[in-house]
Amino acid sequence: MRIISYEERGAARIGVVAGPESFIPVGDIAPSLPASLRALLAMPDGLTRLKDAAAGKAGTRSLKELRFLPVIPDPHVTWALALNFKKHIEETGLTTSKEFPHLFIRTPASLVGHGAPLLCPPPEIAKEFDYEGELCVIIGRGGRHIPAAKAFDHIAGFSCFNEGSVREYQRHNRNFGLGKNFERSGSVGPWLMTADEFGDPARQRVITRLNGIERQNAPLDDMLFSVAQVIQYLSAGYALRPGDMIAMGTPGALPPHPGETLQPSGRHKILGQVNMKPGDTVEVEITGLGVLVNPIVADEKAAYRPV
Amino acid sequence: MRIISYEERGAARIGVVAGPESFIPVGDIAPSLPASLRALLAMPDGLTRLKDAAAGKAGTRSLKELRFLPVIPDPHVTWALALNFKKHIEETGLTTSKEFPHLFIRTPASLVGHGAPLLCPPPEIAKEFDYEGELCVIIGRGGRHIPAAKAFDHIAGFSCFNEGSVREYQRHNRNFGLGKNFERSGSVGPWLMTADEFGDPARQRVITRLNGIERQNAPLDDMLFSVAQVIQYLSAGYALRPGDMIAMGTPGALPPHPGETLQPSGRHKILGQVNMKPGDTVEVEITGLGVLVNPIVADEKAAYRPV
Repeated sequence: MRIISYEERGAARIGVVAGPESFIPVGDIAPSLPASLRALLAMPDGLTRLKDAAAGKAGTRSLKELRFLPVIPDPHVTWALALNFKKHIEETGLTTSKEFPHLFIRTPASLVGHGAPLLCPPPEIAKEFDYEGELCVIIGRGGRHIPAAKAFDHIAGFSCFNEGSVREYQRHNRNFGLGKNFERSGSVGPWLMTADEFGDPARQRVITRLNGIERQNAPLDDMLFSVAQVIQYLSAGYALRPGDMIAMGTPGALPPHPGETLQPSGRHKILGQVNMKPGDTVEVEITGLGVLVNPIVADEKAAYRPV
Repeated sequence: MRIISYEERGAARIGVVAGPESFIPVGDIAPSLPASLRALLAMPDGLTRLKDAAAGKAGTRSLKELRFLPVIPDPHVTWALALNFKKHIEETGLTTSKEFPHLFIRTPASLVGHGAPLLCPPPEIAKEFDYEGELCVIIGRGGRHIPAAKAFDHIAGFSCFNEGSVREYQRHNRNFGLGKNFERSGSVGPWLMTADEFGDPARQRVITRLNGIERQNAPLDDMLFSVAQVIQYLSAGYALRPGDMIAMGTPGALPPHPGETLQPSGRHKILGQVNMKPGDTVEVEITGLGVLVNPIVADEKAAYRPV
């Protein structure tokens, strides 16, 4: 089952994808279920009830021109991993613990849904605005001290994540802080695919394209820490909550394509990493799951705007 | 005006402190105002309407045995500063940027209100569970690219913050991650004191006591980055939201008291920093504002608990 979060008439809603171009609003088939995916996941039988309600039903609405929200628009927390793919560690030359996963947090304000524009900071603020294609894990049943062998009992599903980063700010200090939390700088979607349908993530790949050109393409079994290990680690510190998201880290850059001239990007001089600019379109595909597409638009210039 | 968030019959409520031991439930004097402080701050005239409604009214309820919640239980984000007091930078020997504030994020699950127990991790998980007394800034009016000179127009008020930290986990990697986000490891309260009543934070001090013994006592004008500078910095990246919290960093340790024998604590061998243990009581005072008190209790042992 694939579940979308979307906005209609100012309210958040959820739907079940019913084909390549259509979906069923959950309010139409199961009005007693919540309009929030986080709240649905918090019900012990939420996914089962939704699956039963959607069984055999045909799509009634088009996925086109829908305003997708982040799969979980209001999570308790969104974790993201730094330096979790061996090739990305090599290309940055950065060191990271081989014993413990490297984690930081992203705010809801930093994320948009499928199709929504990502905001490129104005040049007076920053110039290195980068994609990071990643697998996103979404927690279903909560828990504490979850052993890796039980981790999959706690996963509701998976999604695609673009962990968009403003490199200059990320480098300001030891903690990445604001560099990973610019307004509408990342995305998650298009949908949550339930764990039973997606199967083992280690058999899939993550692919990132900028303007149709592949820039990342790596197997999800190249992770330093697996999904199960990260769930075990985090749950030693706090009780994972339904709807918590974990972006599993990004792989290295593909080399430039034949005949292509690229300047190495960033302080680490990564050849094949290309900054995002207004007018670009970025895609993150997780094979077997779907493709998250976002256009890049220029953020407003740096002028005081009280709201 | 001092505003509390508290829990009653399973629901979050707010109240106005009316004396040393009493408060007025907002629902009793202004039933049309929201029961959430974040929602109140999001109303352009929320604080003014509450002040008018409470004017001249006497307290009707006791502050004792109230279940305080974190001042903002459900913020969009809680930022915290690392290494923002000159003496704390010296004692840790750590380096930090002198150009940019050093920021990371705490989850709602990591915070409790005044009087609620802080959970000390079981020894098989971690042994260095430390207090960090801090000033907390709470955003009122949102905004983007806020100049430092306008920052105070965007502050609703201030509170006391205990940025409780699990040092072993904080040191696992470059980003502090889980080490700053153990379940119920920190606190914020007892109340939000409005900016008009609190005045200039730089004239006040932060004091931390463990079991009644002072362990930190520093002027709030010893900060590397001021409240106004941090607001300017953050708002360059995203639009600050009503209810966003910023914990401004912790000062250094006081030396041991005369006749006291203490072992230096942690990898940085800080003399005067004392780990918190079950049975302890920790207090963070901001002079002119109030005292945040929390008992320390042992968290359950590390056994699998699905929820």
